[in-house]
Amino acid sequence: MPLQTSQAQNVFQQTYDYVRETALLESTLALLEWDERTGLPAHAGENRAEQVTFLSGIVHQRKTSAKFGHWLDELVQSELAMQPNSQVGASIRGMKRDFDKNIQLPESLVKRIAHAVTVGQQIWSEAKPKNDFAAFLPHLDVIVQLRREEASILSNGSSCRYDSLLDQYEEDAKTDEVAVVFADLRERLVPLVQELTQSRSRPDGKSIVGVFDLTKQKEFSRWVAKQIGFQFERGRLDETDHPFCTTLGPNDHRILTRYYDDSFSSGLYGTLHEAGHGMYEQGLPPEWFGLPAGCAASLGVHESQSRLWENMIGRSKEFWQWCLPHAKTWFPQLNAVSVDSIYADLNRVEASLIRIEADEATYNLHILLRFELERELIDGDLQCVDLPTAWSDRYESYLGIRPKNDSDGVMQDVHWAAGLIGYFPTYTLGNIFAAQLLNAACDDLGELPSMIAKGEFQPLLQWLRTKVHQHGRCLKPTELIARATGSPVSSQPFIDYLSEKLIPLYR
Amino acid sequence: MPLQTSQAQNVFQQTYDYVRETALLESTLALLEWDERTGLPAHAGENRAEQVTFLSGIVHQRKTSAKFGHWLDELVQSELAMQPNSQVGASIRGMKRDFDKNIQLPESLVKRIAHAVTVGQQIWSEAKPKNDFAAFLPHLDVIVQLRREEASILSNGSSCRYDSLLDQYEEDAKTDEVAVVFADLRERLVPLVQELTQSRSRPDGKSIVGVFDLTKQKEFSRWVAKQIGFQFERGRLDETDHPFCTTLGPNDHRILTRYYDDSFSSGLYGTLHEAGHGMYEQGLPPEWFGLPAGCAASLGVHESQSRLWENMIGRSKEFWQWCLPHAKTWFPQLNAVSVDSIYADLNRVEASLIRIEADEATYNLHILLRFELERELIDGDLQCVDLPTAWSDRYESYLGIRPKNDSDGVMQDVHWAAGLIGYFPTYTLGNIFAAQLLNAACDDLGELPSMIAKGEFQPLLQWLRTKVHQHGRCLKPTELIARATGSPVSSQPFIDYLSEKLIPLYR
Repeated sequence: MPLQTSQAQNVFQQTYDYVRETALLESTLALLEWDERTGLPAHAGENRAEQVTFLSGIVHQRKTSAKFGHWLDELVQSELAMQPNSQVGASIRGMKRDFDKNIQLPESLVKRIAHAVTVGQQIWSEAKPKNDFAAFLPHLDVIVQLRREEASILSNGSSCRYDSLLDQYEEDAKTDEVAVVFADLRERLVPLVQELTQSRSRPDGKSIVGVFDLTKQKEFSRWVAKQIGFQFERGRLDETDHPFCTTLGPNDHRILTRYYDDSFSSGLYGTLHEAGHGMYEQGLPPEWFGLPAGCAASLGVHESQSRLWENMIGRSKEFWQWCLPHAKTWFPQLNAVSVDSIYADLNRVEASLIRIEADEATYNLHILLRFELERELIDGDLQCVDLPTAWSDRYESYLGIRPKNDSDGVMQDVHWAAGLIGYFPTYTLGNIFAAQLLNAACDDLGELPSMIAKGEFQPLLQWLRTKVHQHGRCLKPTELIARATGSPVSSQPFIDYLSEKLIPLYR
Repeated sequence: MPLQTSQAQNVFQQTYDYVRETALLESTLALLEWDERTGLPAHAGENRAEQVTFLSGIVHQRKTSAKFGHWLDELVQSELAMQPNSQVGASIRGMKRDFDKNIQLPESLVKRIAHAVTVGQQIWSEAKPKNDFAAFLPHLDVIVQLRREEASILSNGSSCRYDSLLDQYEEDAKTDEVAVVFADLRERLVPLVQELTQSRSRPDGKSIVGVFDLTKQKEFSRWVAKQIGFQFERGRLDETDHPFCTTLGPNDHRILTRYYDDSFSSGLYGTLHEAGHGMYEQGLPPEWFGLPAGCAASLGVHESQSRLWENMIGRSKEFWQWCLPHAKTWFPQLNAVSVDSIYADLNRVEASLIRIEADEATYNLHILLRFELERELIDGDLQCVDLPTAWSDRYESYLGIRPKNDSDGVMQDVHWAAGLIGYFPTYTLGNIFAAQLLNAACDDLGELPSMIAKGEFQPLLQWLRTKVHQHGRCLKPTELIARATGSPVSSQPFIDYLSEKLIPLYR
């Protein structure tokens, strides 16, 4: 018999308190990882892995406890769960969905994965600068094997194991559907990239070449992040070897980038990308922290925020109309540079090896090949030992270039070392969502380009807060985007955005 | 019936595994605190306090669980516990001692204390630079009240509540006995300080005055810490507002200092002090991490290590014979400075307000007045609201000076904000132990001063490893010192050390 509403409210309050406590432990786990990636002493790795493993076990016990399951069973049958547009209802449905997945996973597997990915990131971090794939391989093998095992359990015998991994990042996304999107994109992007890279009037990239003081880069990146709206009283910007963003509490959002002294754009765009993630997290309702109503809708929606700020704003001409005079105060070597030339150089399209440095057009080809490779890894059609060759062959086939070493090839990203298999497609989904959001924001705000040109970022941020952030995970990702933009999800706006932006640059 | 040895060994192994897991959580708590003190975002404090509180509750549950208590009851009756000089026996006895204390404390009190001291440190950290004791007062009040409550429980109705707090830092130390040591020290130190400060030939301190680049100070401090033997592959050096040392795992020791641009000595001596703590922790047997055999013997012994490296080594003439030429490469403003003058200036005796900047002679008067004040706080004879006046009066009476504000007065130290009441006396015990250790090391090593003058610190460090570090908490503090030095604990060597060092400097 369903609970009366008042009883259900009591059960919900218990559940809320319980989940908030679990979130305290999960955010402590996030600190353990943040600290691991910001200067863990060389010999401290094994103990860190043990800490993460043990705490992950406690978190999994809490997430799968009989008590919690019982409360959820009661709640999903109550009136509270039926309310279609309430944060309570959405949280109940989301928690139940998560519980039903978690309960299938044995604690031993969860702990083995936690251990493997903690050690995996440590080994990756040492092996990458030494270009030592052989040292990384056995750890990657274990990670892929464990994720295969997890996928088998979660897919319940269905034919597509990769679906269950994808679903962890993008609720209800299906591998086959994503594959169709990628095939379509590939068909349209390859000719566009060819047209652009073969053009005689390509930007030469010279305006952004030079030596850029690292201390000044840090100050500049911090300043820009603050200007676009990242709240430093609720966050930090630090350095790491592979940029990321993590949340340690409802008012504690950490973004991390890396700086090179021969380029100011790597550090800056790493910052803009992660600040986009961070501002999404800062826009989620804090009182729902740890529950679905206080979580991001999906990784695809997350990447729509990071890619929007990084590229659609940060690589726009208007952004540089505003930013260049400021940049010159930090970097006098830019004094002779014009807005037109830096805009062109920061949007130069070329086949390149490193995903996170790639231009917006080729970027999705980098994602496509990772999507293909990781599906094959999970299906067992590709073994880790063969990855470097498969990687290089695919770069040659899609982009016409071949990495000279594994550091610039298969080891460039931290994702697989961190067990993030099924994550990459969300970057391209993010690009697609972001183009739709940008169009809708332009329609709603009218003067968005001129606002950006004046450094007025608050109207856009507030629009994103209202249309995206505040909804947490109350709507499915595609529904959230459709409501925010008034149109169903489609890759057409993204293709149009790329063509309209890039083709004129090459005339 | 006592367990057979083989059964006992099984129970011990279970216990060992259990305690090692608890240590994973405790060292995670240490990370939460380390992170809080190295740049927590301004608004993240409340969530951090909740994280610490919740995790402290789990740790307390584990430390007082019926299962654990049962294992310990079996083990203390087994042959394993009887072996007087074994790490196993000492660990069993130590765990049982701790259990019997912990089991008296309700989880709710432990959690309230954890919350109060986490918030307390945050508020202190904001209030101190603003000289705002009023903002800190209500939090300090709560902390003192909670520690009184804890002391009442642990003292089991005995007349001296402070004993039970002191015992948490210095096993078996008694307030009355410590008071006798302090009275004796005071009687001998006050005339010495008077003689020195009234001398006409006082060092003028000019050699160490100047502006010292912060980046260079950081490099220099790091270099010195490495030279004396702090292992950076097992640790880090960071910045904070009040120097400390914390251990995040058997190979993860974090030391923290602070730098001022008008003095290179604050940053350097903060580093040397904390490196002394860190090297002690690095010398404990890692395989016993989390158990008594792998823990420091006491805070007094800990401070003997930090004060030895900071002062007895770091303020010795031989140290500067070695160090000054190196220091000049970082700080050319020292080029004209001689070893004699920097040695004299770094050992200038004067009544001053800040404990951690104080010379070795007046230092113990700073401790004495804190010891007196915190006893009165715990006994209820002094209320927090009256602390600033009581503090200032006592400085005037013991040192002849009065702080102009609470930042340089009652708020200068983090200890009470962190709930560390009963800790201060261990600094002076540490000085006393250190003087005995220094004498014994000189006897054993023969050429210690000439080693230091050549920058050869390994023999001394190895001597400390053998005589002190490797024994963990297997011996009571006074027994450990007596065995290491061949003499019972006495303050005479410390008084002799001060007189022999300082009087000639003032002739």
